[in-house]
Amino acid sequence: MAFKTDIEIAREAKKKPIQEIGAKLGIPAEHLLPYGHDKAKVSQDFIRSLEGRPDGKLILVTAINPTPAGEGKTTTTVGLGDGLNRIGKKAAICIREASLGPNFGMKGGAAGGGYAQVVPMEDMNLHFTGDFHAITSAHNLLSAMIDNHIYWGNELGIDQRRVSWRRVMDMNDRALRDVVVSLGGVANGFPRQTGFDITVASEVMAILCLARDLEDLQKRLGDIVVAYRRDKSPVYARDLKADGAMTVLLKDAMQPNLVQTLENNPAFVHGGPFANIAHGCNSVIATRTALKLADYVVTEAGFGADLGAEKFFDIKCRKAGLKPAAAVIVATIRALKMNGGVAKADLGAENVEAVQKGCANLGRHIANVKSFGVPVVVAINHFATDTEAEIQAVRDFVATQGTEAILCRHWAEGSKGIVDLAEKVVQLAESGASNFAPLYPDEMPLFKKIETIAKRIYHADEVLADKSIRDQLRAWEAEGYGNLPICMAKTQYSFSTDPNLRGAPTGHSVPVREVRLSAGAGFIVVICGEIMTMPGLPRHPAAEVIRINDQGFVEGLF
Amino acid sequence: MAFKTDIEIAREAKKKPIQEIGAKLGIPAEHLLPYGHDKAKVSQDFIRSLEGRPDGKLILVTAINPTPAGEGKTTTTVGLGDGLNRIGKKAAICIREASLGPNFGMKGGAAGGGYAQVVPMEDMNLHFTGDFHAITSAHNLLSAMIDNHIYWGNELGIDQRRVSWRRVMDMNDRALRDVVVSLGGVANGFPRQTGFDITVASEVMAILCLARDLEDLQKRLGDIVVAYRRDKSPVYARDLKADGAMTVLLKDAMQPNLVQTLENNPAFVHGGPFANIAHGCNSVIATRTALKLADYVVTEAGFGADLGAEKFFDIKCRKAGLKPAAAVIVATIRALKMNGGVAKADLGAENVEAVQKGCANLGRHIANVKSFGVPVVVAINHFATDTEAEIQAVRDFVATQGTEAILCRHWAEGSKGIVDLAEKVVQLAESGASNFAPLYPDEMPLFKKIETIAKRIYHADEVLADKSIRDQLRAWEAEGYGNLPICMAKTQYSFSTDPNLRGAPTGHSVPVREVRLSAGAGFIVVICGEIMTMPGLPRHPAAEVIRINDQGFVEGLF
Repeated sequence: MAFKTDIEIAREAKKKPIQEIGAKLGIPAEHLLPYGHDKAKVSQDFIRSLEGRPDGKLILVTAINPTPAGEGKTTTTVGLGDGLNRIGKKAAICIREASLGPNFGMKGGAAGGGYAQVVPMEDMNLHFTGDFHAITSAHNLLSAMIDNHIYWGNELGIDQRRVSWRRVMDMNDRALRDVVVSLGGVANGFPRQTGFDITVASEVMAILCLARDLEDLQKRLGDIVVAYRRDKSPVYARDLKADGAMTVLLKDAMQPNLVQTLENNPAFVHGGPFANIAHGCNSVIATRTALKLADYVVTEAGFGADLGAEKFFDIKCRKAGLKPAAAVIVATIRALKMNGGVAKADLGAENVEAVQKGCANLGRHIANVKSFGVPVVVAINHFATDTEAEIQAVRDFVATQGTEAILCRHWAEGSKGIVDLAEKVVQLAESGASNFAPLYPDEMPLFKKIETIAKRIYHADEVLADKSIRDQLRAWEAEGYGNLPICMAKTQYSFSTDPNLRGAPTGHSVPVREVRLSAGAGFIVVICGEIMTMPGLPRHPAAEVIRINDQGFVEGLF
Repeated sequence: MAFKTDIEIAREAKKKPIQEIGAKLGIPAEHLLPYGHDKAKVSQDFIRSLEGRPDGKLILVTAINPTPAGEGKTTTTVGLGDGLNRIGKKAAICIREASLGPNFGMKGGAAGGGYAQVVPMEDMNLHFTGDFHAITSAHNLLSAMIDNHIYWGNELGIDQRRVSWRRVMDMNDRALRDVVVSLGGVANGFPRQTGFDITVASEVMAILCLARDLEDLQKRLGDIVVAYRRDKSPVYARDLKADGAMTVLLKDAMQPNLVQTLENNPAFVHGGPFANIAHGCNSVIATRTALKLADYVVTEAGFGADLGAEKFFDIKCRKAGLKPAAAVIVATIRALKMNGGVAKADLGAENVEAVQKGCANLGRHIANVKSFGVPVVVAINHFATDTEAEIQAVRDFVATQGTEAILCRHWAEGSKGIVDLAEKVVQLAESGASNFAPLYPDEMPLFKKIETIAKRIYHADEVLADKSIRDQLRAWEAEGYGNLPICMAKTQYSFSTDPNLRGAPTGHSVPVREVRLSAGAGFIVVICGEIMTMPGLPRHPAAEVIRINDQGFVEGLF
């Protein structure tokens, strides 16, 4: 039997009007702002009216370190949401929006896969409800106001060499990484070197995803440090009076988007901060809204648990006061084999030994997540090539870690294939076993926080940082930023900073190359290794084959 | 009595659900793609289903040369639409969308004014339905693909010094007018000088507004000339295989937006090409759709009739096969006085002589519009300070021009105040007097077309152009572009190229500074004087005071 592709399955979806999906959560039609017939935003007024309601249970879906074999974290998030609904729980999922630009480079990401998908897939991979465009506008308005302020006399005394705020575009465009602006003479301002990042890397994106409401949004936007003076004192977006207009540009984008799974269950898709220089989680406002409306909310965090879960716990949950009830760690036999040293080309053959070896990676993630006080279950996202012996090897290993590995067939079967996991998640959540606490207290010194993450989560021996970096951290502490959490930016492929070091390495060092203050978002970015804030297009970008075909369908995007 | 502001009136509007507005035109709810409860796009499928239906009558609203006193062209367009509905005609209006960027510089434009407005005003001045963002994305995807092509080996042999396709942003940002990109070394490409225009100046905007359907859109996008080789042969967007993906990005934006007037009559608001380097009219697809659905369609064109009406007739109507049934020329007593030499500060005092003198400007516009075979009526957009003697002076003058001037009080009274004009427009349209023909035939040589416009419309003695410009025009003729219409770009404040020459100047010269080919849009831009394709922000941009106030309303935008 030939399998259907994700897009074929998505196109066959029997979508319900979005008002019916909203009704499942008790959202009245007048508080759903429709975008077409299958997407809607939930009104701010309705969200405000939910204050004081009790929260449902929050379930995090995270994963082992990603490999080219794929793990299916979003697929499992979607499947688990459907599975919980199937066993009679009122459940919603919360995931991130896709970035438009990269879809024109490589083939775009579906939201989930197989029979565990969110629709409408095409819209979600194109403009969706315009949130990212609003973020681009708000970001670039601030950029324009900085150069405009300098142009008209520079009353604030901005040091043109120290403008840290760049511009953004939702596009893979390497030519914009490093540019000189304001050429062409007096009328165009003072030439200076700057650049563009992709929109998802904007601090405005991180802010939108961490803000509790419009008021908090505006405060955080005002807190952005855009430049420094010659005396190195910071200039804030507030000093330029940009925060009000930016908030106006973002007021619609702040309203969470509601769509549906293939099984017509509610899915909030909102926000999409980079998982490296930001925290990689969907918006706080969507998660909090979903918790008020559903008994179970399933969400995910970017990359593997070393980065994604740690930042979810230490940044998002800490700052939003969220208390996760349980966590699911997704693994595939294929990815475990790669973590056990098998090359991608050899993944087809049974290799129990490699699976066992790769389980070291899984084991450390289990221990790490447990160390936050959150109970864990492992989901084995089933592939047709998995053998019974390989699956049993994972079951046996996970049992030694004091938890359980459950085989899930949601990709092929939808909610029917993930009932066991759903029941286990309910059992863990209802048990009250969760005793969530972040990894480090707010008041810990910044460098000590970095060391704590490196040693306790990555199992590194040491953190290496130049004096200038330590001095910078101390300077921020003196300025009152010492209580901020850390946002680690390192390779997602390893616990270490070496992408080729799979499994569960120990004894490595974590070299810190750079630290950046995101004062509006409210974290310190610690960069270990190269990070790319503006991707490029490949030799043959997907854009070359993307088109509307004779049937009126979009081709080449997926 | 204190007058209410436009925004106060707009906020008191009793808006009907957009499905009810659509129903007035016979658009079934399933073919309206809602954006919130008060905006919707009309589906492509529905538009296709209208083929073969008879067209309603098309009415153009144009104006005398604009002055700082204001004429109220959009206000009259909206008022006339309401007025036609009031007298029992099934009427719709078609106007342009507002550009987001400039609203953060100067206070933003309402759509109409007083009791002749289109709502929701706030949304229309912010992101609306995202059309302009889609245009920005499509434009910049092409830009990225050009630099990416050069980066990966430049198979097409693009001369990097001759890349004419720039980037765009919907923002007033003078720092981006002239930039160097691809700095920073090998990984970022080959440094070259380029720049950004504001989105409304994008050829993609003009193309969207002139394309008949998605197929035509894709063809035109492919026709864009993006660069030249060293042998000066053109490189097209099609050569980069960018046209399919750009079409996908624009597929939603191609669907016309439906909103409503304060009197709950249908208004199509779609597209917004610059009135200088483009043709300044709303989209062909919106106008054609409206004509299939309404008995009367009232539309407008940018700037005064010398630019707006001429381009509406010679570009939009010619290319889309539209036959306008009548035209309204809007004038105000105040603007006529300014055309008669009165300074803005002195407009409050009665000055019949200045009105009479200013009528020379009006008279020439009447004659010009008539020369296209379209019957004309003059609308005097009433201001409280107008005196009876001044109004009578205009009436008397217009009578000598073989038509009629009608006093309109739609700003203060809504449709009730514009019934006389509506009835006159119906009389002209029903009379069958219109015998529309463009000013010049397709096959006229390009320079001769420029001369024809300059002499017949502007009443200039001559067109001045360097040999290089005449050579360029001849080269385009040789390449097969000789049949394109001309898109004049000159000051809107005068029939001449001198903005201070009000009234009805004669004997002047029209110096052509530059010519540009818009091969996708399908016109030759002829630039006479400075044109600005990327505005800057003023010393104190409106953005500084734009904010959401305590009542949750947007403040400072209007």
